[in-house]
Amino acid sequence: MDDSKKETYSDRFAPLEMNTDAFRELGHELVDRVADFLAALPERPVTTGESPSKIRSLLGESPLPQQGTDAKTLLKETANLLFDHSLFNGHPKFWGYITSSAAPIGILGDFLAATINPNVGAWNLSPVASEIERQTIKWIAEMVGYPVDCGGLLVSGGNMANFVGFLAGRYAKAGWDVRAIGQSSPEAKRLRVYASAETHTWINKAADMFGLGTDSIRWIQTDADLRMETDLLKAQIDNDLKSGDKPFLVVGTAGSVSTGVTDPLVEIAKICREYDLWFHADGAYGALAACLPDAESDLKALSEADSVALDPHKWLYAPLEAGCTLVRDSKILRDTFSYQPPYYKFDEVGGEPTIVYNEYGPQNSRGFRALKVWLALKQVGRSGYERMISDDIKLAQELYQLADQHPELQAFSHHLSITTFRYVPEALKQTHEERETYLNQLNTEILTRLQEGGEAFVSNAMIAGKYVLRACIVNFRTNLRDIEALPEIIVRIGRIVHAELQPNH
Amino acid sequence: MDDSKKETYSDRFAPLEMNTDAFRELGHELVDRVADFLAALPERPVTTGESPSKIRSLLGESPLPQQGTDAKTLLKETANLLFDHSLFNGHPKFWGYITSSAAPIGILGDFLAATINPNVGAWNLSPVASEIERQTIKWIAEMVGYPVDCGGLLVSGGNMANFVGFLAGRYAKAGWDVRAIGQSSPEAKRLRVYASAETHTWINKAADMFGLGTDSIRWIQTDADLRMETDLLKAQIDNDLKSGDKPFLVVGTAGSVSTGVTDPLVEIAKICREYDLWFHADGAYGALAACLPDAESDLKALSEADSVALDPHKWLYAPLEAGCTLVRDSKILRDTFSYQPPYYKFDEVGGEPTIVYNEYGPQNSRGFRALKVWLALKQVGRSGYERMISDDIKLAQELYQLADQHPELQAFSHHLSITTFRYVPEALKQTHEERETYLNQLNTEILTRLQEGGEAFVSNAMIAGKYVLRACIVNFRTNLRDIEALPEIIVRIGRIVHAELQPNH
Repeated sequence: MDDSKKETYSDRFAPLEMNTDAFRELGHELVDRVADFLAALPERPVTTGESPSKIRSLLGESPLPQQGTDAKTLLKETANLLFDHSLFNGHPKFWGYITSSAAPIGILGDFLAATINPNVGAWNLSPVASEIERQTIKWIAEMVGYPVDCGGLLVSGGNMANFVGFLAGRYAKAGWDVRAIGQSSPEAKRLRVYASAETHTWINKAADMFGLGTDSIRWIQTDADLRMETDLLKAQIDNDLKSGDKPFLVVGTAGSVSTGVTDPLVEIAKICREYDLWFHADGAYGALAACLPDAESDLKALSEADSVALDPHKWLYAPLEAGCTLVRDSKILRDTFSYQPPYYKFDEVGGEPTIVYNEYGPQNSRGFRALKVWLALKQVGRSGYERMISDDIKLAQELYQLADQHPELQAFSHHLSITTFRYVPEALKQTHEERETYLNQLNTEILTRLQEGGEAFVSNAMIAGKYVLRACIVNFRTNLRDIEALPEIIVRIGRIVHAELQPNH
Repeated sequence: MDDSKKETYSDRFAPLEMNTDAFRELGHELVDRVADFLAALPERPVTTGESPSKIRSLLGESPLPQQGTDAKTLLKETANLLFDHSLFNGHPKFWGYITSSAAPIGILGDFLAATINPNVGAWNLSPVASEIERQTIKWIAEMVGYPVDCGGLLVSGGNMANFVGFLAGRYAKAGWDVRAIGQSSPEAKRLRVYASAETHTWINKAADMFGLGTDSIRWIQTDADLRMETDLLKAQIDNDLKSGDKPFLVVGTAGSVSTGVTDPLVEIAKICREYDLWFHADGAYGALAACLPDAESDLKALSEADSVALDPHKWLYAPLEAGCTLVRDSKILRDTFSYQPPYYKFDEVGGEPTIVYNEYGPQNSRGFRALKVWLALKQVGRSGYERMISDDIKLAQELYQLADQHPELQAFSHHLSITTFRYVPEALKQTHEERETYLNQLNTEILTRLQEGGEAFVSNAMIAGKYVLRACIVNFRTNLRDIEALPEIIVRIGRIVHAELQPNH
């Protein structure tokens, strides 16, 4: 090989590399910026409410740059861009949807995870990381009262966590070689899934993606509290069996997305045992509250499920992304997903068996999302989590009482850390029906203004056709003063919107 | 409410919170540790080769701690644990499987992403983050020559990226309402997927998970270079059509996992147009090399595909996890995944439409994986990537030549940045068949010792029954001296193992 070629690589030109001094300098600068940002977070708006075109104009529509740019300037400008134009889940007054504040140790954990950058798809590529994930799964199982010898893994979030449980259930219960012939079995089109209408849309996506189709879902009605009616569940299963359908899976929700209610899991578990069905508990939001000594028995009954989905990026306050599936029978989980192609040789190291995580789920290459979860569990222990989760719930209860006592607010529900309520102006003169239509319109507009204004952030739910405001407190930064401020904010916006919507405005 | 209650939350006890000074101190300490680690990385072994029981003993088998622990000590001990017992993809001599070294700016990017912690499932929860993902997708499309008005999103990795393309293809080509009735259509069991035997196992997982079953895959034979035989593809499609089957998707691989070869994508694209089939290009590894001016025409033909999977955590050197799917018709991608439940209100902000990423893929909550990719693209620009990718390829070519010239090595293949070769002792006296069996045994043992020894790290491939060593260079830290060292390392281990395996040893 000629000398010019040697020159090209022997001291290779790699513009992405940073020398140690540069990395140290940029890292320290970023830590200072992040620390300042976190300190000032409560004084910032939750979000700026800027329009898409405004945000896009900040980035520009330029094509991929041909030449690079200075990393120091780039990081400084990017940090400022993000600090000034983001919505912050970590803000003390963020209570929208179900995304938690990110634990600072989780932020540092993600930094360290990206440094090591192990591929946790295979043990020999990630020895400590795989074992940390294994320990994390065990600790999570322990925390929610699930058998610690279960199978399990971390995934991207609630949808994926539920998908893994769903697929394990299909594999276990189909009764034919579902991996080889899929839904081509004559029975396959008769597979039936049971879920309440309050189930999160993951169930639609699952039935659709995995080839059953959403028509395979039997939507079971809920009671006044939006809990699944188990009498109707049983009747539907009986009915389906009579007509030759093949029930295989019941979803029970532990903490629904709308109101935080938990389905009657004790009864669902019983029915699943009776009919030999797979019991999947969607505890993406609520499962972790099962760690509380006074958790209700239906929540604790997720320990009876064949599979459980739960999200460390919700009630373990991990930064996104961290979902988790637990499956009672580890072998079923592995048999649902394992392939061993000729180019992999992963099953043992030094004669000992290893845990090869790509055999337990859909992913092949996998990142080290366990680190942030494991660090937080170690930092505060079970007692720390019990305290924070329990206080989130108490704050939501407090909000319910404040709304209930306020003459212009109507409280609807409080389950776990979700409270729903709406603004109702005094002296509304319409008929009942007109009134409901108007209140929906009014509260929709209130929510839009609240969300865009950035003073606080809640989302919405629909309860029996009523559009309600919904605060979900999965936020260790929220304190009582934050909660006490909300009713006044809502009522202030409500009065303005109500005045504007009046015909003679 | 009573005073004791007030005391509980007004200054809330939240052990996961860190005050600014503590965060700053811990952050600076961690930056220093990471900088020192990165500086010393070339002197460390690639991996320690420790046994699972050894690694487990480092963690202990203790249950979830009841009480927490000091964050400063915890972070220090955890960093040391990871530095001392991990495998490092970022090591200059790591060339196993396909995982890249992590760009330092990507490490800092993940730190910043976890700080902001936006949920990039919905635009209003992640205004800048959603737009950064949108721009990243556009830039990636531009880089590989794909239409920039395509749909696309970032996902966890290559499996998921391929799954999204697969599902879009099924939705587009099934010809019935696949989302509602799934594989229950009478035609469903006749759906046929075409892929070569060199296709990565994602195709098995996809066919199986999505309810077609692996029996739906038609494995098309490959030529001597392990490229799909398109005559056989066409013949199989004709045959299937004749017997009433329903071909719908052809997978062409751009950079195979074993040898890095690219299927004849020009011809596959033509066949897909002729038969109205979905053309999915699996470019998880190779697609980004299409940015090179001298890329082969079959690689560039991924621009003809209906969907493309590619991995920024491979040849954009992003830390895990970052996969990406591009779909030519953005509407098809959205229609494949979109649900709009009553509790979401995401479609517009201030009267302008927004991009709501949970409607474009399987996930609902989504992290900000775009940041690390976008920062790296900005830091080095297209020219920087062309240089690094091109040098990776040249180094692999150099390795091929070194192996080819070495009397005790046999070179097999060089495609993109993957080179395969094996150790062959001089003067082997067995018959041909015995010899091949012995060489497989010998090279298997060489690989085990190499991987556990930590001097360098390659993986393996099977080529026509032959077990070969496989170096895949997706590593901007590798220079010519690293590559030049490999043949001597292999031959040294090879001689030892060969001597041990001799009958009179």
